[in-house]
Amino acid sequence: MQLFAGAHIRRVVASQFGFGETGPVQLVTIDDIRAAAELIRPYVVRTPLVPAGWADDERPLWIKPESLQRVGAFKVRGAFNAIANLDESVRTRGVIAYSSGNHAQAVAYAAAIYGVPASIVMPEETPTIKVAATRGYGADVVLCGAGEREKVAAQLVEQTGGILVPPFDHRDIIAGQGTIGLEIAEDLPAVDTVLVPVSGGGLASGIGTAIKALCPGARVFGVEPELAADTAEGLRLGHRVDWTIEDRNRTIADGLRSQPSELTFAHLQQVLDGVITVSESEIRAAVRELAYRAHLVAEPSGAVALAAYRQGATPPGRTVMIMSGGNIEPPMLQEILAR
Amino acid sequence: MQLFAGAHIRRVVASQFGFGETGPVQLVTIDDIRAAAELIRPYVVRTPLVPAGWADDERPLWIKPESLQRVGAFKVRGAFNAIANLDESVRTRGVIAYSSGNHAQAVAYAAAIYGVPASIVMPEETPTIKVAATRGYGADVVLCGAGEREKVAAQLVEQTGGILVPPFDHRDIIAGQGTIGLEIAEDLPAVDTVLVPVSGGGLASGIGTAIKALCPGARVFGVEPELAADTAEGLRLGHRVDWTIEDRNRTIADGLRSQPSELTFAHLQQVLDGVITVSESEIRAAVRELAYRAHLVAEPSGAVALAAYRQGATPPGRTVMIMSGGNIEPPMLQEILAR
Repeated sequence: MQLFAGAHIRRVVASQFGFGETGPVQLVTIDDIRAAAELIRPYVVRTPLVPAGWADDERPLWIKPESLQRVGAFKVRGAFNAIANLDESVRTRGVIAYSSGNHAQAVAYAAAIYGVPASIVMPEETPTIKVAATRGYGADVVLCGAGEREKVAAQLVEQTGGILVPPFDHRDIIAGQGTIGLEIAEDLPAVDTVLVPVSGGGLASGIGTAIKALCPGARVFGVEPELAADTAEGLRLGHRVDWTIEDRNRTIADGLRSQPSELTFAHLQQVLDGVITVSESEIRAAVRELAYRAHLVAEPSGAVALAAYRQGATPPGRTVMIMSGGNIEPPMLQEILAR
Repeated sequence: MQLFAGAHIRRVVASQFGFGETGPVQLVTIDDIRAAAELIRPYVVRTPLVPAGWADDERPLWIKPESLQRVGAFKVRGAFNAIANLDESVRTRGVIAYSSGNHAQAVAYAAAIYGVPASIVMPEETPTIKVAATRGYGADVVLCGAGEREKVAAQLVEQTGGILVPPFDHRDIIAGQGTIGLEIAEDLPAVDTVLVPVSGGGLASGIGTAIKALCPGARVFGVEPELAADTAEGLRLGHRVDWTIEDRNRTIADGLRSQPSELTFAHLQQVLDGVITVSESEIRAAVRELAYRAHLVAEPSGAVALAAYRQGATPPGRTVMIMSGGNIEPPMLQEILAR
């Protein structure tokens, strides 16, 4: 049996990035995550675990503030790992991404560091401040109509020969985000519970993989807005489900409106102990609590794990929450802080 | 000559804590700071250098966010080092501090960790939230009239046999705050400029000592509000000067209203390359910039180093700013963010 273990786990997949993989899903391993950590170390902030001294005594809480990364969110980890893993000859053709949010800036920034061209497809309604930030890293921003971004990105791939860096549906992206789990295991090996926001599922897949490998006794819970709770439903039913984008767009947590792919869903089935859903008013209260008690500015998507903690239903023990990002527009922050 | 160097530098001083030291000023050394780092490691957050990607290309900027410490400010470092260095027999008699701010909570927290009683003298006008936070660590809070806190603290020392932990005027406090400089030198050994808020001077004394020892080419600048710029004036004149407390109380930066002691002033003369003064409106703009761009909630005192950077007069090169704390009342934060 042992003889075949390695062959079973490691399959050779087409090396063309993003597209071209076929066959059964190959899950990311702790070795992939360790390799990612080595590659991205020079470019990412080693975020500390911030003790939330005011939290429950029975569930001492630490915050992992990924808002402190260069682009204000964890997305740099996956983007750097994906781009670092490209063959030099492929990478120099340039990278392409579609995103209205943090992934756009992460890919633009990583491309700038590697000195390769980046084309980022963004919907026309993207706030000017985010378009400007992405251009600020030297990326070429291509605006497109609603619902057209994947098509436009595919056209760019064809025209330029560049490589698509997907936001979550790739093993290198998952491994990059998983380095957060590695750091948690290093800093707090006796962790009991980890709370992770879930959208496309790259973050939760990577962190869950690392935690289950290194802290097998710990439980990992995904957190979703009630208004975009497709993963909670899908895991209950045992298969991916689709919620309409109109439904998912109702939540204020604009970073949590995506849905898992086959690849990330397979990881989530393997590594999550459950999914907790939170209301819009709970999310807003968590943004306030993070600002006033933890001195951290969170975007709504970055605050959902605290909202889940505040429901009081997670198990006793040492708890870590992932604060995934801090990119919130000033008027929204002002409005939420004022109640 | 060499023969006497050690004897000249190291003098034996009375070991009674805070009070009882006599003779010429003995400056803190890098060895003191290294020893402090070992002692306090389990209790403090190893804060990262957060890259401020939007800053000037010629003066790349990193933020050292001490707001992420357990009590929301750097003060835990000095308080832990001071209490850790007490003889066990002395420590068990309890600790006493006077403070309306972050030092109160830091001493209360450190005492709780060491399991010794803490009495904290606070002015009657201290915001309820800060009194509650200090009591939350199990400390006994003694309220007193304006201008009476040092007298009341001295009475408590006499009555209880406890030990006073001063906010800045002690070598162990300075060495504890200096561990920030040690971490900067570890994380960014090629640092060119360090910007540090100055009030009683413990923070700047410690950081300056560490930086000058480990990065001798780097320049260290203190930063003060224009409305409490006693240290800028004192260093220019070559001796301590006193500004009235009424004058110093005008600044919104309530953590920067103290003045150096003989001990800290002697350090500042040795380690600072200059003091930059900033206006009230510059401080408010810096609080906004930290929230909107760095995703960090700073108290006004914690934002002055960014205000100094924004004046544009610091030298080119890699710049680190100390963000000393994040304890700001919600109404003030709301008002500043709204302009």
